[in-house]
Amino acid sequence: MKKILEVLKVIPPIYYLLIGLPVAILGSLLHWNPTLNFIAACVGLIPLASLIGEGTEALAVVTGPKIGGLLNATLGNAAELIITIVAIRAGLLDLVKASITGSILGNLLLVLGASVLFGGVKNGRQRFNREHAANNATMLVLAVVALSIPSLLNHTLEGEALPGPITESLSLGVAGVMITLYLLGLLYSLRVSDSALTGGGAASEAPRWSAKQAGLVLAATTIAVVWLSEILVGSVEPVIASSGLSEFFLGIILIPIIGNVAEHIVAVQVAIKDHMDLSVEIALGSSLQIALFVAPVLVFVSLAFGQQLNLVFNQFELIALIAAVLTAALVSSDGETNWLEGAELLAVYLILGLAFFFLPA
Amino acid sequence: MKKILEVLKVIPPIYYLLIGLPVAILGSLLHWNPTLNFIAACVGLIPLASLIGEGTEALAVVTGPKIGGLLNATLGNAAELIITIVAIRAGLLDLVKASITGSILGNLLLVLGASVLFGGVKNGRQRFNREHAANNATMLVLAVVALSIPSLLNHTLEGEALPGPITESLSLGVAGVMITLYLLGLLYSLRVSDSALTGGGAASEAPRWSAKQAGLVLAATTIAVVWLSEILVGSVEPVIASSGLSEFFLGIILIPIIGNVAEHIVAVQVAIKDHMDLSVEIALGSSLQIALFVAPVLVFVSLAFGQQLNLVFNQFELIALIAAVLTAALVSSDGETNWLEGAELLAVYLILGLAFFFLPA
Amino acid sequence: MKKILEVLKVIPPIYYLLIGLPVAILGSLLHWNPTLNFIAACVGLIPLASLIGEGTEALAVVTGPKIGGLLNATLGNAAELIITIVAIRAGLLDLVKASITGSILGNLLLVLGASVLFGGVKNGRQRFNREHAANNATMLVLAVVALSIPSLLNHTLEGEALPGPITESLSLGVAGVMITLYLLGLLYSLRVSDSALTGGGAASEAPRWSAKQAGLVLAATTIAVVWLSEILVGSVEPVIASSGLSEFFLGIILIPIIGNVAEHIVAVQVAIKDHMDLSVEIALGSSLQIALFVAPVLVFVSLAFGQQLNLVFNQFELIALIAAVLTAALVSSDGETNWLEGAELLAVYLILGLAFFFLPA
Repeated sequence: MKKILEVLKVIPPIYYLLIGLPVAILGSLLHWNPTLNFIAACVGLIPLASLIGEGTEALAVVTGPKIGGLLNATLGNAAELIITIVAIRAGLLDLVKASITGSILGNLLLVLGASVLFGGVKNGRQRFNREHAANNATMLVLAVVALSIPSLLNHTLEGEALPGPITESLSLGVAGVMITLYLLGLLYSLRVSDSALTGGGAASEAPRWSAKQAGLVLAATTIAVVWLSEILVGSVEPVIASSGLSEFFLGIILIPIIGNVAEHIVAVQVAIKDHMDLSVEIALGSSLQIALFVAPVLVFVSLAFGQQLNLVFNQFELIALIAAVLTAALVSSDGETNWLEGAELLAVYLILGLAFFFLPA
Repeated sequence: MKKILEVLKVIPPIYYLLIGLPVAILGSLLHWNPTLNFIAACVGLIPLASLIGEGTEALAVVTGPKIGGLLNATLGNAAELIITIVAIRAGLLDLVKASITGSILGNLLLVLGASVLFGGVKNGRQRFNREHAANNATMLVLAVVALSIPSLLNHTLEGEALPGPITESLSLGVAGVMITLYLLGLLYSLRVSDSALTGGGAASEAPRWSAKQAGLVLAATTIAVVWLSEILVGSVEPVIASSGLSEFFLGIILIPIIGNVAEHIVAVQVAIKDHMDLSVEIALGSSLQIALFVAPVLVFVSLAFGQQLNLVFNQFELIALIAAVLTAALVSSDGETNWLEGAELLAVYLILGLAFFFLPA
Repeated sequence: MKKILEVLKVIPPIYYLLIGLPVAILGSLLHWNPTLNFIAACVGLIPLASLIGEGTEALAVVTGPKIGGLLNATLGNAAELIITIVAIRAGLLDLVKASITGSILGNLLLVLGASVLFGGVKNGRQRFNREHAANNATMLVLAVVALSIPSLLNHTLEGEALPGPITESLSLGVAGVMITLYLLGLLYSLRVSDSALTGGGAASEAPRWSAKQAGLVLAATTIAVVWLSEILVGSVEPVIASSGLSEFFLGIILIPIIGNVAEHIVAVQVAIKDHMDLSVEIALGSSLQIALFVAPVLVFVSLAFGQQLNLVFNQFELIALIAAVLTAALVSSDGETNWLEGAELLAVYLILGLAFFFLPA
């Protein structure tokens, strides 16, 4: 008994949430209440997303900076990628688009806001590499400008939307350009090591696992994430029916938080420890990955499942994206932050959240 | 006779306009032409707004920087607050929203533009605290982003607007978040004394009045402002009918100029004296106060009068606000100005004014 | 024969394209296939636009910096001005507005992007005068804000557009303000010599022609440009009918490239030679000239031909303009560039091009 308690002390509290894994699996097999299964799957996914992140980083440390950077760049948002792919296969395309938006909003307003606020309260004015932050902010603004062009063109055709095939071709073309830009960004960052694309995590730690161990952890957690994603996606519709929340609200607020909560905690923790460079890098880098890599990849993946995920976001998503990128770029591009700026970012998140909550379904 | 002339020499010319006060009161009692009463009320309000400002500052000097800062932060736009509250009671909600917009436009384009232009012609390139100006510009952009979210969401629902109660709840929620942010901003500026929120006036002068005198001046001018506001608001409708000007045009151009003309003159005067820091502070600080404090307070005040002032601005107001904030932030955030930038700001104001003038009512 | 080859070696390859001039003229006289005439006119206009530029600069060198600056400022986009005036006379107003937009897009995204990309690949990180670039970027943002206000106001009147006469009056008013601002900008740059308005070319070279020679070259090329423009404009409609390309696509992509290709090549060449200051100046300065001078002049010119060119751009043009200005300002305003930023600008151009291509006619 004493021994068990000692082991429990060593385990970080976040792993207690793994209890959601067996509950969700049992619940789905025994056809328990879908809302319960949904909540259990959400709970279980939080530590699994964290484990995928740790496995990726352990592998990155072992394989050296170049391949490690590539691993971080492609697997950095693996949990969210898996959840959204499962959702695409189930045809929940609005949920997927909302979760892409929500993930960028969460990183730029909630995570960056909380990091700047708590870091600023603890450490006063915090400084970080201005040039680096400005480069990332520029790339982020460009990514969101590019990402929103198909939507803007679509919405301006008042009354009549673009025909489906044209929207589809345009989305594929834009996705192709964005992935190319992402690859160029990787190339640039591997040469200059001055970009958030290959970072996004505390990569400087000592390796905790061997390559083999890391591979095993990654394989096991990936299977578990796929399983839980199936349960989560499968119970979305009954949950919407019983809770009154919209598919859009689940997608824009809930899914992104589940997929990133571990990373979010890290960003705030390092901000409190006054490593503001790393904190800003996590928030901006993760947003860049979603905009330039995850979103375009999902467009291509959707084809494989006979679905047609396009890049036409609704106007609420567009407004929120533009507001978030603008404010995050303004706050971060001068290379220093104070707690008031953190409060400002959180205020924008709160107001957007209010608006999403009051939106008619 | 000679003595009277000497007294007149000592009185600043702006106080000659107090003649509007008795004329408007007489006119309203004797039912003169409403247009005449309207003009007299406008004329009389200009020196009264200036007197409220001076009374507040005198009190601020006496009470010390902390309470003085709070006084400036809450009473800095008292005259405009009173006019708009009277207009809300009379149900002129469009006039009120237009005057909120117009006040921000006036400060950011007309006042800042004229200050930069005349200051630059006199003194060449003018420099001021870059960091401070950038902080204020960031907060201003965030305030306008937050302020425009309810409107943007409302306008994107093509054809059908949000139901009234939802708009109302959303506006109250947004107003609550903004006032909280304003209070946090006050807290920050009281600690760091690095914000425009508590400034906004030439607070460094020696006290002209005792606390008691200042209190008396404030009480008397407040009563006079309320009285003139009643006359002004009461004659808006006949003036609209006879002049052909729209309620929107009166709200967006005329009311803000009346409420702020004294402050405007000060901003330009100090710019010509090469105190560009103070001049930029007046323009940006006053805009921040309107956006983060006056507008949300009016939302709550409207409830007390059984009116429902929401934060849904029309698209002309939104476009103008975004254009003004963007250009003012661009011009001021690099910490230096030249006369050409002043001309640019005035050109944007002029083009917006042309557009408002040509708008169908 | 050997002698001819030697002469040919001395002639820059771009002048080989002058072959388009006789072909187009012959073709139009003999009523050849309009598409052939159109292509020949396009080909012939490229070297002629370049010759006008050289003639202007030769004259500018002879007449000294002040008058030379004015010459560059007014004749810098002479070829494009002539083509668009001919198009206005023919009533092709949509083509004209599209080519104004396309010219700004081309300068800010294609030319600046290619310069930054190739310059960066050759020379690594490139630096240039930050303050100067930021001033130009600010003026550019203000110019586009001002330029888009009539369009934004027009589009927000859902369902019903502004009446024609109001749009016309508003456009004339805005054009008047913008030309005034342009003249003030010239005045500023002549005094401070710190603006892109009077530059826009490699004005530091030794004079190649005498004033008389330069005048003759200018007169001859102007006549040829007018002639070719007539042929080009006259064959636009049959080309649209037979090729399936829209008037909008011709205007936004093709016309601007023809009118500026020589200048574009110079901008990229000097970037490769690491004269990034000049390269950025060409791209931003040319865009400023189009927005603040060419567009407003065309509004007034259209009146002389009994046409009514207004400044109401369609929403695709507006979105593209705002995206282009925003990204170019972001990339250039920090005074340094790397090849990745060039790739980002080109990516935005490519995505906009895709969108324009997929647009229904």
